[in-house]
Amino acid sequence: MYNFFLESLRKYIHLSDQEAELLISRAQLRKVRKKQWLITPGHECKVEFFVNAGCLRAYYLHENGNQYTTKFAPEGWWISDLHSLFNGEPAKQYVEALEDSEVIGLTKESMEKLYEEIPQLNKYFRLVYQKALAASNERVLRTISDSAHEHYTKFLAQYPQLDQRVPQYMIASYLGVTPEFFSKLKAQVMKSIS
Amino acid sequence: MYNFFLESLRKYIHLSDQEAELLISRAQLRKVRKKQWLITPGHECKVEFFVNAGCLRAYYLHENGNQYTTKFAPEGWWISDLHSLFNGEPAKQYVEALEDSEVIGLTKESMEKLYEEIPQLNKYFRLVYQKALAASNERVLRTISDSAHEHYTKFLAQYPQLDQRVPQYMIASYLGVTPEFFSKLKAQVMKSIS
Repeated sequence: MYNFFLESLRKYIHLSDQEAELLISRAQLRKVRKKQWLITPGHECKVEFFVNAGCLRAYYLHENGNQYTTKFAPEGWWISDLHSLFNGEPAKQYVEALEDSEVIGLTKESMEKLYEEIPQLNKYFRLVYQKALAASNERVLRTISDSAHEHYTKFLAQYPQLDQRVPQYMIASYLGVTPEFFSKLKAQVMKSIS
Repeated sequence: MYNFFLESLRKYIHLSDQEAELLISRAQLRKVRKKQWLITPGHECKVEFFVNAGCLRAYYLHENGNQYTTKFAPEGWWISDLHSLFNGEPAKQYVEALEDSEVIGLTKESMEKLYEEIPQLNKYFRLVYQKALAASNERVLRTISDSAHEHYTKFLAQYPQLDQRVPQYMIASYLGVTPEFFSKLKAQVMKSIS
């Protein structure tokens, strides 16, 4: 049940069997049904989730009714509301399962202990956050530079096969374009790739 | 010369005198004049910079001539082009000194060695990236949610006193509003704070 999780960590750090056991004893395996929320706005988020199976997304619901997808998290990704988690403020986003999914949750409290007990986890999360930060900065630049074509091409590279698993209007909202514009864009990009 | 730098790190991790010496032996102290660039687009960025004195900013120059300020870095902040640094691609942004400044550079190569020699640095950078990532996500949400008023209030909290050190049009470009709108906004916010 935890094999995929442990393998993901062991790509980056060495974990002894004892350490792996300790880590698992602190983790919470949880099933989420399609369309169920893991995180909702207004409540403090105290858990970071590893996606063991399935796919989730984070989105912001504007008061005008528009949804803005800020992240997709298929198997092997981490997802949470980090601002809420680290600053204790209420979450602003929804995290929703797009398919029946399985997540492994680690509470903020458990994490603090685990960092002391298994210092290698600092390296693992240093790498996880480093990559996520570089990707987040890059995404802001792509939004500014207006190249929807490049933005979508990078999306396909970053999330292989995901465009076949999630509704098209969510990808449009992730790219910050209308669903109509997105279907034209997709046709263009597919033509240029094939 | 390295006192402020070492104190900044020692707020989060323990560094022995030997470790501090090793770290400093790998670091490069560099002075940059106001308006001088540390990073320019098109070249691979291989260094992460700690701001020892002064203030820098990162910005993206759109082909339409607009500048988009993506980050300010006063004393104690780190600045780089992380996507270029970690992926080896050419940088897309400028990093420019806004005042005569002093930075401490650590190359990617030095960092890799230092992580092995001083494992505590994994914890330090885990925390640095974690905070930066939470702030970056929060900033994206503020941009989406359109509340320029809240955006500016948070800017003032995140960068105390900085509005008196940098040109107003740069803060406007950081907030994603026109300079004209920004001066109205500022008047409003100042009124509501005082």
